[in-house]
Amino acid sequence: MLTPSCVTTNLRVRYAETDAQGVAHHSSYIVWFELGRSEWLRARGYSYRDLEAAGYIIVVADLGVRYLMPTRYDDQLALATQLTEVRSRSLAFRYELRLAEGPLAATGQTKHLVLDRVSGRPVRMPAALEQALRQTS
Amino acid sequence: MLTPSCVTTNLRVRYAETDAQGVAHHSSYIVWFELGRSEWLRARGYSYRDLEAAGYIIVVADLGVRYLMPTRYDDQLALATQLTEVRSRSLAFRYELRLAEGPLAATGQTKHLVLDRVSGRPVRMPAALEQALRQTS
Amino acid sequence: MLTPSCVTTNLRVRYAETDAQGVAHHSSYIVWFELGRSEWLRARGYSYRDLEAAGYIIVVADLGVRYLMPTRYDDQLALATQLTEVRSRSLAFRYELRLAEGPLAATGQTKHLVLDRVSGRPVRMPAALEQALRQTS
Amino acid sequence: MLTPSCVTTNLRVRYAETDAQGVAHHSSYIVWFELGRSEWLRARGYSYRDLEAAGYIIVVADLGVRYLMPTRYDDQLALATQLTEVRSRSLAFRYELRLAEGPLAATGQTKHLVLDRVSGRPVRMPAALEQALRQTS
Repeated sequence: MLTPSCVTTNLRVRYAETDAQGVAHHSSYIVWFELGRSEWLRARGYSYRDLEAAGYIIVVADLGVRYLMPTRYDDQLALATQLTEVRSRSLAFRYELRLAEGPLAATGQTKHLVLDRVSGRPVRMPAALEQALRQTS
Repeated sequence: MLTPSCVTTNLRVRYAETDAQGVAHHSSYIVWFELGRSEWLRARGYSYRDLEAAGYIIVVADLGVRYLMPTRYDDQLALATQLTEVRSRSLAFRYELRLAEGPLAATGQTKHLVLDRVSGRPVRMPAALEQALRQTS
Repeated sequence: MLTPSCVTTNLRVRYAETDAQGVAHHSSYIVWFELGRSEWLRARGYSYRDLEAAGYIIVVADLGVRYLMPTRYDDQLALATQLTEVRSRSLAFRYELRLAEGPLAATGQTKHLVLDRVSGRPVRMPAALEQALRQTS
Repeated sequence: MLTPSCVTTNLRVRYAETDAQGVAHHSSYIVWFELGRSEWLRARGYSYRDLEAAGYIIVVADLGVRYLMPTRYDDQLALATQLTEVRSRSLAFRYELRLAEGPLAATGQTKHLVLDRVSGRPVRMPAALEQALRQTS
């Protein structure tokens, strides 16, 4: 099931996110994608924090990034986060990171499993999360 | 060109690498893979530091990770890093991360470009690096 | 010379900034203070990025933090950054980090030196920076 | 109560720990000090992981660092960690970080509280921890 919804998160590269090459370290993009997911859920009126409080966790099962252009300290970035798949126990997102001026800096995708927080086993996601994810608008 | 050489790096999960799920954050694996590459080069008698001093940088162009099992604070991990491709301007590695007791915790792969440090343009890698990479043993 | 100027930066705790204790890792506060300094300079119409482009760097010489209350994923924080000292080759800041609801979560202070980017030696800061720092309002 | 015991941890600066100034970011030292504490406890036959499993956490209440010389990617560092105080609900450490060749790169100190993991309240540390800390040699 493809869900075309897209949420944009605005970021600025932090100094601590750079490395000795003078650009943002490639692991920083992973942290930004996670931020994009948090903001995507928040835009749907859902909080990942509440999900954990309810006894669930969402983990990353698979991750891919293509780095197209370097980003630098203080660069303003626009991260577009799009839900690409929802199943009863899993979900997937796709990301496009652009320099504020326009060019695409990176693309990525992640696959996730919903787990029971205590047992660590995959479980059917709670109805409130599924509803937030399947909402069309 | 497939190069079967493999170098193992031993790691312990740092507390700062964990997150509120109680496990190592998924971005920590990216940092460990980078460490694996450093150690791979060192095992061949080559230093990435010297490469940068000579006016080159190696950047990550593409990255993928599959997370199979969580890892936790103080876990001892064995990271096997293998060079999988060498071309005149690019290279690729593959990673297998195991809990010291045996089970596979994650696998990954990265593709890299060699750039001129000043211009940021792809260049043919220096002979000393190519030799270290193509060495068979 | 005490300069009472204060700039407030609003933050949200990122998941990647938490640790297995379920709270923001104590090193995350150091990154937030740095963000506070960037925003403080920006509020004065000055950019640290331009300073580096002009051949200078500002380094941290001394740092102190008191942790008063834990902060957690998704907490909204207000970081007040205040310049407390300006000399020709050094400066100092003080920080107060509050949970958006009010209580003080941490306080800190940092001392900095201005260095020549190439030689790494302490130098008199450029006039434009000194002017931005000594501005009263 | 001063305890002169000192444990040395050997480190190498990771690329991900550097920043655009070309040196290790100042927040990396905080992570290294934490590693020093883990190794200090391990050297006494005690594991922080076991402490958490037993229902306690140790938190950082206060932290100070003096940065004396920059450290760079791949630098080999020797971190000396010394317990400086033990009380029934608190402890303190002091750190000296040296470049392998000798010069002092940074010094630091941290103060800690022992908390009940569930309530988050200060508690008397368990006897096994107190014994490990007060051990003389």
